[in-house]
Amino acid sequence: MNVEILTPLLDVLDILGVAVFALSGALLAAKDRQTFVTMVFFALMTGVGGGTVRDLLIGAPVFWISDPWIAFACFAVALLTWMTPTRWWEGKLLEFADGAGLTGYAVLGAAKALSYGVPPVPAVLMGVVTGCVGGIIRDVVAGRPSIIVGPELYITAATLSAALCVLGEVIGLPRIPVWIAAGTAGFLLRSAAIHWKLALPAYSREA
Amino acid sequence: MNVEILTPLLDVLDILGVAVFALSGALLAAKDRQTFVTMVFFALMTGVGGGTVRDLLIGAPVFWISDPWIAFACFAVALLTWMTPTRWWEGKLLEFADGAGLTGYAVLGAAKALSYGVPPVPAVLMGVVTGCVGGIIRDVVAGRPSIIVGPELYITAATLSAALCVLGEVIGLPRIPVWIAAGTAGFLLRSAAIHWKLALPAYSREA
Amino acid sequence: MNVEILTPLLDVLDILGVAVFALSGALLAAKDRQTFVTMVFFALMTGVGGGTVRDLLIGAPVFWISDPWIAFACFAVALLTWMTPTRWWEGKLLEFADGAGLTGYAVLGAAKALSYGVPPVPAVLMGVVTGCVGGIIRDVVAGRPSIIVGPELYITAATLSAALCVLGEVIGLPRIPVWIAAGTAGFLLRSAAIHWKLALPAYSREA
Repeated sequence: MNVEILTPLLDVLDILGVAVFALSGALLAAKDRQTFVTMVFFALMTGVGGGTVRDLLIGAPVFWISDPWIAFACFAVALLTWMTPTRWWEGKLLEFADGAGLTGYAVLGAAKALSYGVPPVPAVLMGVVTGCVGGIIRDVVAGRPSIIVGPELYITAATLSAALCVLGEVIGLPRIPVWIAAGTAGFLLRSAAIHWKLALPAYSREA
Repeated sequence: MNVEILTPLLDVLDILGVAVFALSGALLAAKDRQTFVTMVFFALMTGVGGGTVRDLLIGAPVFWISDPWIAFACFAVALLTWMTPTRWWEGKLLEFADGAGLTGYAVLGAAKALSYGVPPVPAVLMGVVTGCVGGIIRDVVAGRPSIIVGPELYITAATLSAALCVLGEVIGLPRIPVWIAAGTAGFLLRSAAIHWKLALPAYSREA
Repeated sequence: MNVEILTPLLDVLDILGVAVFALSGALLAAKDRQTFVTMVFFALMTGVGGGTVRDLLIGAPVFWISDPWIAFACFAVALLTWMTPTRWWEGKLLEFADGAGLTGYAVLGAAKALSYGVPPVPAVLMGVVTGCVGGIIRDVVAGRPSIIVGPELYITAATLSAALCVLGEVIGLPRIPVWIAAGTAGFLLRSAAIHWKLALPAYSREA
């Protein structure tokens, strides 16, 4: 499979996904009262971090090195954040947009890994990495608790999307409907988690 | 040299090493009262982190991307941790098992680097990276002080094993006995450090 | 373009740059009263971190894996730090040396990225990554606030040097004078920032 043949549509989705993650990085920097330069750095790290780690792991050329528009998109998002009040962006809408980016990227990352010949189980993990690692890098550099350390249904939603995408490929279903269904299922789970504040049970055995 | 020719034995040792490190990651998540999903993530990061960084640095295909059993092993370890009390696993036995994983991996990492044509000094470092980096990533993501920031004889034991492995190769000794001796020497040093709480002296000059 | 043809001079500059960064890592470990082994680790991570991430991103062989002198230089710097009082090294002189390393590396990193066919915008970013990422890794592993989270004109100086280097290449100016001018401009900006404690304005809108 070659992801490239879907280029026109996927490229637009790709830049939208990067932009949503970049926004969450730039907003964190704004709330910490950082400078514009720090904002750009956080927008970049959060926007391209997950896809970068995926590409390094599967041995693909790193996606934003050859495509200058992706760095431009992160810069533009940081500029927009700099020039506007953070309350314009925060709240439920951002959470849902982040959820769409998360699960969309999980599907895209799993599909890209499969197209590079990665076996099913690691391919699911590559989808999860693509969706989650940008946010982990953002939190580690900012010195705050990472989203993966908590009971939220966040990684779980990315895993659902990536696993459905790989499952569809393994049993030979047509790609586009599988991708749409996989992304939608993960997004619905994430949306339900945001709306009803669903959480996974924590480890609770006596030591 | 091709590490692959020793495949049947090395593969088993490899999965055992990954499993020991994965266990230390999953236990940390259990003690922090995290969810099962977070446990799996920590088991994976800790289990495959060191070997992943080594493979990226020496330009080898990342070992767990093409071999799905390694991700399975991390998942199984997380599941076992989830279903059992942490006291079953903690204590001296885990420390010694971790020491065996550390020094075994230091040998394996140095040998793999040599087999990719890496010169002796960086090859020793690749052994140390293979043994230590998984634990560093685990500690950084969990937001706690890293094992490398402390006086314990931990990196030192890994360095001893990796250096002896490379030294044996440089002076042309047969590989298998060198590997066994190198791993044993490092493991004895680490065991002595655990038993007698040995520590290196800290920098103590007046500023 | 092949950076290699300038080897004799660039190699010396390269080792000097690594040594300056390694010194800042070893000094941080000394001030935290760490052991010699931890000092070596911090010297290495800080010295080679930025160039390593750049090489991984642009698909180049990692520079210190094939050249054992670079690891030696980090080791020697750690040894020197261990055997001397930290006050010999700290203060304004180290800050200016760090500024020279930062901006020199930004030029070198951008030039190397261009030589690997990276387009202008990502090439500027590769220069910034080469100069800044070693310090970010050092701060994250040490668990202290990163230099990029603050108003200092640090990343900005690296960006100026990298951008001038790429601009000169794009409009076809001769390489050596451009590199010297680009490095000097960034260094003067960084020196002014150190001397007059210049800082960028922070995000200050009402939420």
